[in-house]
Amino acid sequence: MTKTVTVLSGMIRPLIESHLPDWVEPRFFMSKQEAMELAPQAEIGWFDMYDKKDMAAAITAATRLRWLNSIYAGVDGMPLDVLNHRGTVVTNGAGINAITIAEYVVMGMLTVAKGYRDVVRAQERREWLTDSPGKVELYGSKALLLGYGAIGRLVEERLKGFAVDVTVVRRSPGANSLSPDQWRARLGEFDWVILAVPATAETDGMIGAAELAAMKPSATLINIARGSVVDQDALVTALNEQQIASAFLDVTTPEPLPPDDPLWSLDNAHITMHLSGRAQDKMFARSAQRFLENLDRWHRGEPVAPQVDLTLGY
Amino acid sequence: MTKTVTVLSGMIRPLIESHLPDWVEPRFFMSKQEAMELAPQAEIGWFDMYDKKDMAAAITAATRLRWLNSIYAGVDGMPLDVLNHRGTVVTNGAGINAITIAEYVVMGMLTVAKGYRDVVRAQERREWLTDSPGKVELYGSKALLLGYGAIGRLVEERLKGFAVDVTVVRRSPGANSLSPDQWRARLGEFDWVILAVPATAETDGMIGAAELAAMKPSATLINIARGSVVDQDALVTALNEQQIASAFLDVTTPEPLPPDDPLWSLDNAHITMHLSGRAQDKMFARSAQRFLENLDRWHRGEPVAPQVDLTLGY
Repeated sequence: MTKTVTVLSGMIRPLIESHLPDWVEPRFFMSKQEAMELAPQAEIGWFDMYDKKDMAAAITAATRLRWLNSIYAGVDGMPLDVLNHRGTVVTNGAGINAITIAEYVVMGMLTVAKGYRDVVRAQERREWLTDSPGKVELYGSKALLLGYGAIGRLVEERLKGFAVDVTVVRRSPGANSLSPDQWRARLGEFDWVILAVPATAETDGMIGAAELAAMKPSATLINIARGSVVDQDALVTALNEQQIASAFLDVTTPEPLPPDDPLWSLDNAHITMHLSGRAQDKMFARSAQRFLENLDRWHRGEPVAPQVDLTLGY
Repeated sequence: MTKTVTVLSGMIRPLIESHLPDWVEPRFFMSKQEAMELAPQAEIGWFDMYDKKDMAAAITAATRLRWLNSIYAGVDGMPLDVLNHRGTVVTNGAGINAITIAEYVVMGMLTVAKGYRDVVRAQERREWLTDSPGKVELYGSKALLLGYGAIGRLVEERLKGFAVDVTVVRRSPGANSLSPDQWRARLGEFDWVILAVPATAETDGMIGAAELAAMKPSATLINIARGSVVDQDALVTALNEQQIASAFLDVTTPEPLPPDDPLWSLDNAHITMHLSGRAQDKMFARSAQRFLENLDRWHRGEPVAPQVDLTLGY
């Protein structure tokens, strides 16, 4: 039997090696160099690396690659044109860390609402505050949710438990929804604007000076999508001039944010260092499980899932 | 028409004065001294003061008092024996700030789960963390909820949106519930133990060394009830020895917590200074509205609500 050469990050080895079917010939890499050496043989590959440029180089070198898997939901660091041209199937981690990200969104809203960061600071000083630095209730507030994928749906579910009035943006009409050409005109109605869209040409800079100016002065922007979705210079200006009350930013441009970036110095910017997806310990286990299930589908000639549309970029 | 002398805290004046019915003769106090002077005439009274001893003194001096109202849910600072002996009806603020307290409980769980306090600290240092200091998901975790009043029910509602498996303690049997003599033996099953009980003789010190020792080492204790519900010395020991992972304490003994209290120095103690109920701006409006509705009921000879059982103390 001819085996299928499958090149995999060594990170995932302990979770899958003993479960791999016999038609798979696994080759694990532990460094960028090993990844580059193994890449040309790979028919199936799982090339996740912390440095997105290294990952893109390995994928580009994998000229025989028929199926690429990733633990990440965002594929904006991948050479999508190359993969599309080659006809490589790409499965991503959509939904894998959606639960923790959705939990992070609600944490962001609650900590902003209650002024929790100032409570933490007071605790450091051993100071007993006599009034709450934040006096907002989620109850009865209105949220606009841009992006209605796995994360958006989980955010909506959780916010309903708090009696938040959630409006989603989507192409197909439905209750409590706005179409992509309607939401801008309604921005002034919402207490929370939550960005959970994929990073694509269409969403690049979708929140700029005009959108920020249209928001309520008491509103908070939550970004757990990608830094590129927001015009960050415009955001710094809006926060500085208190055009909006605050921003809770899991993602920024660039990442890491340099120590001298003006965002750090704004007291109404809450920066969480792209940690939302990492705030769980089940990501590797869930991703390994999904990959093993997809291997069986692949072997039977069935479609693997979830597949990235390489033209849309998500 | 004989008017009913009603002595009220000046704090509430702007919200009710213009709405009072004509059978009410309002007298507002602005200081402890004014409260003491007006108290003996009061048939109806609303004697809330920040200092609970002053409040108790005014209530004790109100010998003609037939109905006492309070914005607070907890009545443990009131002279309940005196009120009971006199047959005074007492209405409290049960449910008035239940929404924000329930929101605070979920915020506590999320911030502990994700290690958010360390994210805040890193942000102060302008340091971009590369991994999350907390990696717990609420999803699929198990919570024991002690106290199933207005707050407990709202906490349960919210946690269900996160797919937390919630077990409540109550006398009447039901799905996902334990009776008051069952929960201690089951403590080791829960990731979260949430205290939302009233402060009574029965709940005094209900969480002591034995209960803390029975909890999971990875569990978190959340107290938004009263400091007296927990044996605080035992808690300090349990936190110090990491018998439990952490405690999120909105309430302590005493309050304010003195700067040299050992709780402040424990990195797994999260102290929020009894701010949970204050983290909203609708408490006075909701309380005034309820009082005005109760005045109408009182005038018609109907029962006012919610009434405190002066024997049970809640």
